[in-house]
Amino acid sequence: MEGDPMLRLRVFDLNCWAIRYLSKRRQERIRLIGDRLCQEGFDLVLLQEVWSEQDYSDLKAKLGGCCPYSHYFRSGVIGSGLCIFSKFPILDTLLYQYSLNGYPYMLQHGDWFCGKSVGLAVINISGIVFNVYVTHLHAEYCREKDAYLPHRVVQAWELLQFIRHTAKAADVVLLGGDLNMHPQDVGIRLLRCWTGLRDAFTETKHFEGCEDGCTLIPNNCFTVNSELQPFPLGIRIDYILYKAGSGFTVRCEELQTTTGTAPGTDIPYSDHEAVMATLHVQRTGQAAGVTPSTAVPALVEVLSEARTEVRVGLQAARRQRYSSGRMALLALLLLLLQAAAALGALVGLAGGQPFPKLSFALLAFLALGVLLLATGLHLFHTIEVKMLQGTEEQMRMALGVLQERPGRS
Amino acid sequence: MEGDPMLRLRVFDLNCWAIRYLSKRRQERIRLIGDRLCQEGFDLVLLQEVWSEQDYSDLKAKLGGCCPYSHYFRSGVIGSGLCIFSKFPILDTLLYQYSLNGYPYMLQHGDWFCGKSVGLAVINISGIVFNVYVTHLHAEYCREKDAYLPHRVVQAWELLQFIRHTAKAADVVLLGGDLNMHPQDVGIRLLRCWTGLRDAFTETKHFEGCEDGCTLIPNNCFTVNSELQPFPLGIRIDYILYKAGSGFTVRCEELQTTTGTAPGTDIPYSDHEAVMATLHVQRTGQAAGVTPSTAVPALVEVLSEARTEVRVGLQAARRQRYSSGRMALLALLLLLLQAAAALGALVGLAGGQPFPKLSFALLAFLALGVLLLATGLHLFHTIEVKMLQGTEEQMRMALGVLQERPGRS
Repeated sequence: MEGDPMLRLRVFDLNCWAIRYLSKRRQERIRLIGDRLCQEGFDLVLLQEVWSEQDYSDLKAKLGGCCPYSHYFRSGVIGSGLCIFSKFPILDTLLYQYSLNGYPYMLQHGDWFCGKSVGLAVINISGIVFNVYVTHLHAEYCREKDAYLPHRVVQAWELLQFIRHTAKAADVVLLGGDLNMHPQDVGIRLLRCWTGLRDAFTETKHFEGCEDGCTLIPNNCFTVNSELQPFPLGIRIDYILYKAGSGFTVRCEELQTTTGTAPGTDIPYSDHEAVMATLHVQRTGQAAGVTPSTAVPALVEVLSEARTEVRVGLQAARRQRYSSGRMALLALLLLLLQAAAALGALVGLAGGQPFPKLSFALLAFLALGVLLLATGLHLFHTIEVKMLQGTEEQMRMALGVLQERPGRS
Repeated sequence: MEGDPMLRLRVFDLNCWAIRYLSKRRQERIRLIGDRLCQEGFDLVLLQEVWSEQDYSDLKAKLGGCCPYSHYFRSGVIGSGLCIFSKFPILDTLLYQYSLNGYPYMLQHGDWFCGKSVGLAVINISGIVFNVYVTHLHAEYCREKDAYLPHRVVQAWELLQFIRHTAKAADVVLLGGDLNMHPQDVGIRLLRCWTGLRDAFTETKHFEGCEDGCTLIPNNCFTVNSELQPFPLGIRIDYILYKAGSGFTVRCEELQTTTGTAPGTDIPYSDHEAVMATLHVQRTGQAAGVTPSTAVPALVEVLSEARTEVRVGLQAARRQRYSSGRMALLALLLLLLQAAAALGALVGLAGGQPFPKLSFALLAFLALGVLLLATGLHLFHTIEVKMLQGTEEQMRMALGVLQERPGRS
C-alpha cells in the first residue's frame, strides 16, 4: 500500500484563557478565535481553558460548518476547560482526571477547582484511527520555588501512562495542549521518552511564528511581563506532539504560531499563542515496531529524575499531613478542655469567677473551626501522600521492568 | 499455531472485608486467606477491601513463594482497597478512579472516602498479554430505594470505557471484583454488552459452590441477614469475567465459590464468598474479530436504559445543588444582616437594647458554619451534575455512533 494517498491534516491548538468574569475581553476574543477557525478550516481544533459552556456553545454554533463534530470534557467544579472540534466524526471519548492537581486552599491559583484532566477522542479519518488527546497541566506560578512541580510530574506520568495504555490500537497519536512545562523540563522529557511522541516544533520542515516557537511572549498584551522577565523571548509551554503507529508515518510539514495581536484587531486571541501544525500522514504498509526509539539508559535516567521530584513532593506532603493532624488534635484537646470546664461550672465545681460566656463561646467556635479545617486538610494531604506513593511505586516498578529487560519499550 | 499448548490459569477473587477497627476478626481472616492462597497456588489473585496496608504487606510476605509479584492500588483517603498478586511478572499498572462515588457526608456508608477505582495490571504469561482488571463499585444499601444507582451506573460506564480503551492490544482480558450488582442489573448488562466480557459463572463447564453462584449468602455468619431477606439463597455480586482477544480462545473449565465457613475453622474468610475460576487459554491462530457478539438493538436498549438512570441522577443532583446553593445564600444574607446590625450598634445608630452579645455571636457562628457547609455541598453537587452530564453526553454520542453504523462494535 506504498502508493496510498497522503492525508494532510491541519491541527490548531490554543489555551484560550476564557475564564468567566476574570479574563479580559473574553467574549470578543472567543468571537475572534471562532472567526479565525472558520476562515482557515482546520481539521482538528484542540482548545484549553474554555471554562464557560456558553463560550463552547458559541464556538460550536460558529464552527458548525467547518468542524461539525465536537466534544466538551466535563470535570471538577469549573470544568476541565478542554474541548475538541473536528471535521470528522468523533467515535468515542474518554476523560482521565489527574489524581493530583494542586491544593483547594490555594484559591488565588485555583487549579484544583478545574479538575485538570486529559481528554481522549477517537476519530476515524479516511480509515485511519486517530487517538487525539487534549490536556492542560498544573500551572507553574514560580519557577524558582515551584511547589507544584511534584504534582505536575505526577500529571505528566499519568498522562503518559494513559496514552500508552489507550493508544495501543491507534494508527496515529496526537497530543495538543498547554503542558505548562518548558521543552527541557523533566516532565516533558519523561512524557516524550516514554511515549515516543515527537515535538512538532523540533520536527517541522518549515516554521513561522514567534522566535524559538514560544507560546507565552512578552509582546502579548495579556501576559504578565514580570513573570517572563528571565525569558526575554518568552517561553514555549504549548505543544503539538505526534506519533505514528505501526504501518504509518507522520511528518510535520509546517508549524506556525500566532504572534501576539490578531490580524486586523488590537488584541491577541489569548494570553497564549496558538500552535498550528500541518501534518502529513501516510500508510507505509510496513508493520514497523511502535517502540519508541529512546534507548534504555535515557529512559532510566529521566525516570529516576522524575522519581526524585515525586519523592521530594512526598516528603513535603507527609510534613503537611503531620502538621495538619497535630493542629486538629490540639483543637480537639482545647474543645475537650472547654467541655470539661463547662461541665465543671455546671455542676458547681469551679470556684471563683467563671470565664466570660462570650469569650468562652467564641473560643469554642474558634476551636471547632480549626478542628474542622485541620481535619479537612489532614484528609486532603493523606490523599496526596497516597497518590505520590502510588506514582513512586509505579515508577519503581517501571524501572525494575526496564532494568530486567533491556530491550523493552 | 493450532497446536500451541493450552495455558491453564487459576484465578481467585475475593472481597476481603478488611476494614481496620470495623471488620470482625480481620487479622485472623487475612491469615486464613493467605494460608488458603498458599495451599492452592493460584496464578492470579484479585482482592478488594484490603484497606490496611499492613494486611497487604502480611499477604505479600506470605505469598512471596507462590505469587511473588503484586501491586497495591492507592487512591482516596483510605485507599482503593484493591490489590493483585500474580505468579507472573506484572509489567505495568494503571489506576482509574471513578468520577462519582457517593457523598462525603454519608459517613455511615463511607464509600466516598475509599476512592473506588478500577486497577489494571498488564501481565505477560507465556507470551500472552493479559490485561487484568480488579474493581469494586459503590455498594447498594437499599435495593428498593437505591440513591446510589446513578453513581453505580456511571461507574459501570467508566469501567467499560476504561476496559474498551485500554484492552485493545490485549490477548486476554480478565476482570474480577465486587461489582455490587445482581446479574440482571442494568450496570452489569451494560458492561457485558459493551465489552463482550463473558461471565465465568454462566459459561463454566463445572460449577461447585453456593447455589446460583451466590457470593453473599445467609449462611455466612458475617452477613447481615436482614439485608438478604428478599433473597433466601443470597445474591451474586462478585464476578470473574473474561474475554479473548483476536487469535485466542478462553474457556472457563471450572468455577467454585467458598461456602461460608473456611475448612477447619469456625469462621468464613470474609462476609463475601470467594470466586475461583480455572480458565483454559489457547492460541487459535485465526485473527477473529474481537467484536462483541451483542447485536446493535440490544446495545441500544441497554444503553438507553442506563442513560435513563443517569438522567434520574442528574435531576436529583440538580435539585441538591439548587437547595444547597439557596441555603448558602440565606446564610450569607443572615451574616450580612448581622454585620449591618453590629455596625449600626457600633456607630450608635441602633436605639434601645442591643442584642445580647452571646446570642449574637452564636448566631453569627452558626450562620458562618451553615455558609461554609452549604457552599461545600454546592461545590460537590456542581461536580456531581457535571460528571452526570458528561456521562449522559458520552452515552448519547455512543448511541448516535451505533445508530449511524449498525455494524460497529
